[in-house]
Amino acid sequence: MSHPIQFNILARDATSWARAGELHTPHGVIPTPYLAPVGTAATVKSVSPRELRELGASLILANTYHLALRPGADLVAEMGGLHRFMAWDGPILTDSGGFQVFSLAPMRTLTPDGVRFRSHIDGSEHVFTPESVMDIEMKLGADIIMPLDVCPPYPATREENERALDLTHAWAARCLAAHDRPDQAVYGIVQGGVYADLRRASAEAIGGLAVAGIGIGGLSVGEPKEMMLAMLEAQVPCLPDGLPRHLLGVGAPEDLVAGAARGIDTFDCVLPTREARHGSAWTPEGRLNLKNARFQRDAAPLDPTCDCYTCQTFSRAYLRHLVKADELLGLRLLTIHNLAFVLRLMREVRAAILDGRFASWRADWEARWPRALPSLA
Amino acid sequence: MSHPIQFNILARDATSWARAGELHTPHGVIPTPYLAPVGTAATVKSVSPRELRELGASLILANTYHLALRPGADLVAEMGGLHRFMAWDGPILTDSGGFQVFSLAPMRTLTPDGVRFRSHIDGSEHVFTPESVMDIEMKLGADIIMPLDVCPPYPATREENERALDLTHAWAARCLAAHDRPDQAVYGIVQGGVYADLRRASAEAIGGLAVAGIGIGGLSVGEPKEMMLAMLEAQVPCLPDGLPRHLLGVGAPEDLVAGAARGIDTFDCVLPTREARHGSAWTPEGRLNLKNARFQRDAAPLDPTCDCYTCQTFSRAYLRHLVKADELLGLRLLTIHNLAFVLRLMREVRAAILDGRFASWRADWEARWPRALPSLA
Repeated sequence: MSHPIQFNILARDATSWARAGELHTPHGVIPTPYLAPVGTAATVKSVSPRELRELGASLILANTYHLALRPGADLVAEMGGLHRFMAWDGPILTDSGGFQVFSLAPMRTLTPDGVRFRSHIDGSEHVFTPESVMDIEMKLGADIIMPLDVCPPYPATREENERALDLTHAWAARCLAAHDRPDQAVYGIVQGGVYADLRRASAEAIGGLAVAGIGIGGLSVGEPKEMMLAMLEAQVPCLPDGLPRHLLGVGAPEDLVAGAARGIDTFDCVLPTREARHGSAWTPEGRLNLKNARFQRDAAPLDPTCDCYTCQTFSRAYLRHLVKADELLGLRLLTIHNLAFVLRLMREVRAAILDGRFASWRADWEARWPRALPSLA
Repeated sequence: MSHPIQFNILARDATSWARAGELHTPHGVIPTPYLAPVGTAATVKSVSPRELRELGASLILANTYHLALRPGADLVAEMGGLHRFMAWDGPILTDSGGFQVFSLAPMRTLTPDGVRFRSHIDGSEHVFTPESVMDIEMKLGADIIMPLDVCPPYPATREENERALDLTHAWAARCLAAHDRPDQAVYGIVQGGVYADLRRASAEAIGGLAVAGIGIGGLSVGEPKEMMLAMLEAQVPCLPDGLPRHLLGVGAPEDLVAGAARGIDTFDCVLPTREARHGSAWTPEGRLNLKNARFQRDAAPLDPTCDCYTCQTFSRAYLRHLVKADELLGLRLLTIHNLAFVLRLMREVRAAILDGRFASWRADWEARWPRALPSLA
């Protein structure tokens, strides 16, 4: 089967599983490794498409669950699809809705056919089946879409994870069968909780389907970070090498570097944008809490090495004032900076892989970043 | 006495008191009539300086009361003054703080020397005297500054207004005596409530001082709009003709047109930005409440005649979605549009005066705008 995306691996790191590539989609090229900003409700919170473009963003993620509930997939389709609706002409990925149903929606009932739940917005009842989720995602029209999966909580028993895997695998096949939009690439989602053998089995099962790429789900859901890395180390070698790998919902700086070292190509995460809205700015030396009194009279930019609008224009003292006064502009300026920070981090990772110096780059980076994670074992 | 601003009247309308001019300040030229966006806490809520510049804004207003309480005038001065602190290199006007003390602050005690009050933010006790307000405004460093005044509520008795006027006039003289920053222009504020003879007396008293311009205070504080216009008609002819006239806190579209017809040169108002944050968009045909279901599937821009980023990029359906989902981007996009709308309205007023066609322009505009106010009697 031919897919509307094409993934070219341009270089591989000799000291880890890291690789640098280009993922071609109908709406443009994603240089990998790459972190996709999250636009849950068809907007990356507080920033405009123009600002995303200026930040050098390519792929962004939007949430199937949220958009299905509000404003509804039919409305988005009538308005010309998600790209036109939100005025983003770059690549978009929609997730499966599974994680949100299992983490946000009350009154869930899981059956072999799908999941019944109530909206967290207005309590209305909804059903997601593999086929209905494909229908929603085809209406939304993203470049890359995910099949409905079952994402168990952490902790969950082995039996719960086995049952979730069975459904996830069966639903992936049903999603592929139900999908018929040639300009969209359907990924498969692998799960398995924190059970290495289940992770491997899931990789084999999903890797055997006609998927265009792999979404790795169920990580960074509460387990220790070392356990997340161990699961990647178990699962990634079992995935088809040539397919792009997306690690769902992971995006702390230390996870991005550790994930890239374990062969992840794309990530998505709300952390850079959410932490910004909580007054936290990411810099090469770590997180700055702008509410801290030590920034009150600090005339320096957030990060003197950053070329984003925020750092080029405003002082820490001003940003702190905006945060303390609950000013909307403060939320945006910190969001712009945090996105600039992670997008640059990904560009640095990519350049280091392409130049054959990822190991030394990483050692330098870890010496500065306070929460660096272990290297690949 | 020489002032650091220069006001040139370029044209006068033959059918009203309207005039078009240029107000030169140390940070640039303000084309008049003009509405200043309000940046209460050293930020025009939700928009960036770059966006203000793109909108064609020149003068913006910042609030002395709010900035004195947070982050404090000393801090702003240490950070290089308000222009540098908020990264706005265009003209800035700081108000007197009087209106906010009398409308926001609890526990006010008024004495001939000043006013003691508590902060609405943290309850701390503060005193504003004419001299301390000048000190604060000199530290903030705006181009145009207002002296401390007493703004009675509406309704207030004649006696209350007389007492307020006596203090306002005495304090204006004390402010002028205390001011010694040569790059700032000090205006005088006229008051008088809804008493035409007091309005005239205040104009004579303040107009006799060495002020660089006139701030008209105490209007649009709850009185009927016709009464506001009657007060302007009483007071404006008693003001020195050559001084710029700023109508404080007034800015509904119908007020801007009616005010310009009564000889007002500059305005400031939170309405365009505040109504945007409440989901209301201004268009040539009136206000649109984006929460209204009729916009759910409306693919048109807010205002097809508008060239702002919002109207050039997004549909009403998308903007409604953002408003309904409480998305930060929605607040900003509506703010950008409402500012574009009023700034364009002012440019149209100005062009009509310069071209000698203000009366016919106004008749056309009033035929469309649902809340048009009476012409100058």
